[in-house]
Amino acid sequence: MERLDPPRLSRLSINQATTRPQWSLREAIEGYSAAGVNAISVWPEKLAECGIADARRMLNDYGMTVTSYCVGGLFAGADQPFGPRPLDTCRRLLDEAAAIDAACMVSVVSTLDSQSKDLAESRRRIAEGLQALVPHARAIRVPLAIEPVHPMLAGELCCINTLGQANALCDELGDGAGVAVDLYHVWWDPDLEAEIQSAGDRILVFQICDWLSTTTTIRNDRGMMGDGVIDIAGIRRMVEDAGYQGYCDVEVMSERDWWGRPAEEVVATCIERFQTVC
Amino acid sequence: MERLDPPRLSRLSINQATTRPQWSLREAIEGYSAAGVNAISVWPEKLAECGIADARRMLNDYGMTVTSYCVGGLFAGADQPFGPRPLDTCRRLLDEAAAIDAACMVSVVSTLDSQSKDLAESRRRIAEGLQALVPHARAIRVPLAIEPVHPMLAGELCCINTLGQANALCDELGDGAGVAVDLYHVWWDPDLEAEIQSAGDRILVFQICDWLSTTTTIRNDRGMMGDGVIDIAGIRRMVEDAGYQGYCDVEVMSERDWWGRPAEEVVATCIERFQTVC
Repeated sequence: MERLDPPRLSRLSINQATTRPQWSLREAIEGYSAAGVNAISVWPEKLAECGIADARRMLNDYGMTVTSYCVGGLFAGADQPFGPRPLDTCRRLLDEAAAIDAACMVSVVSTLDSQSKDLAESRRRIAEGLQALVPHARAIRVPLAIEPVHPMLAGELCCINTLGQANALCDELGDGAGVAVDLYHVWWDPDLEAEIQSAGDRILVFQICDWLSTTTTIRNDRGMMGDGVIDIAGIRRMVEDAGYQGYCDVEVMSERDWWGRPAEEVVATCIERFQTVC
Repeated sequence: MERLDPPRLSRLSINQATTRPQWSLREAIEGYSAAGVNAISVWPEKLAECGIADARRMLNDYGMTVTSYCVGGLFAGADQPFGPRPLDTCRRLLDEAAAIDAACMVSVVSTLDSQSKDLAESRRRIAEGLQALVPHARAIRVPLAIEPVHPMLAGELCCINTLGQANALCDELGDGAGVAVDLYHVWWDPDLEAEIQSAGDRILVFQICDWLSTTTTIRNDRGMMGDGVIDIAGIRRMVEDAGYQGYCDVEVMSERDWWGRPAEEVVATCIERFQTVC
């Protein structure tokens, strides 16, 4: 296969989940910028800690693009991860995304509450929630990037588990909705190439990391690009062939390894791997 | 929803993986039979330990139906789980299934070898392997029950990860091939009902267990029916609506719980749960 052009540093974004335990939002903006990375994905918990006014000022001072605002647990009940997040909370999160000029809100929806085993009903409820939310996304010009999440997290975290599902939702939602393609969640999908093609310009974020062949746990055990089994360059080609020209956002949540290293080393490794194996 | 008839004990099979650390094949035949269960799924390692002649004799003496012979790592290279299992080894495993009158061979294929990140190529290689194997399955009248395995095991264990894929393979393979529907692997699938309908009379085995909301590890952490989030009765209805009239085969590999309990208690619990929550 013909090699793609090596990725340019100007296309690299770092998702602050990659340095979650090490750095606050202020430290991440400073640290990424010092390493030559000029785009970041921001999490609500970190933004709350910093405060919106200070975050805006710093992002502006450092010339940092906000690739996405990453939100979990949309429409979660009180007994679900991130919950409770009813519709008005979801709208407020969109407002936060707008306040820091995020290009989109990565939207990880919730799943079964503790009273239910009806996954189809949960999916209908989520679709209704998104229908109610999308007008606000349109109004404030922060599109929802619906993220399909790995099927191993269907029971606990999120009931949208394939890119096909996310694409079908986008068809229903129309303007204001797109998808987030996260390698970790979708790399195994036998329909991946067709669904990426079908997503086309609805791809709002492309998140990169790797799947380790030594994986044993289902949470926060992601690999650095090049350390696992995902054909990252191959899937980047699919995404770019579908028309995506945005950032590659490195999201490596890694309890066993990278979260325990100095953040400067993590960032340097993200850059090196981005330029050599992606 | 209208309640299905409660399952009859005569429809219950126990997969010997459920009592893997506790019981040999001899002990499992005796123990399941003593509890009133007259069907079993057998694993190669356990059959080898017992020997085919003795196994045949015991299965016959106890009037035990062999629901399936459960084989992993079909076409695996030497560096893959269960490997090496080249074509001639796969044929020999089919002969073993025939020797104990197994109704089918549950076929868990292999995936990426350590040199490759090309999942599409692995899938093509597996399809070729199955094409080469299916004439022998036809000749000795032991159909392959192709088992889609949860996407969290795509990197390490098996590259057929959806029922849709398994159905498409069956279309290509024709006579001698069907599918194994294992709740643990497929419950999350947004296309599940349609794919079960499409599988129809190609469903050769229906394996039951549960997905625990407290799951953290990707291997051997299955739940007993009723302890997790799967709508077991709902999916049993789908399978029966598609025409399946065979056994429900309980397969609970559980390092944290059931593998540490007395096998008699495990078997009694399988029966009780089968009759109350399935």
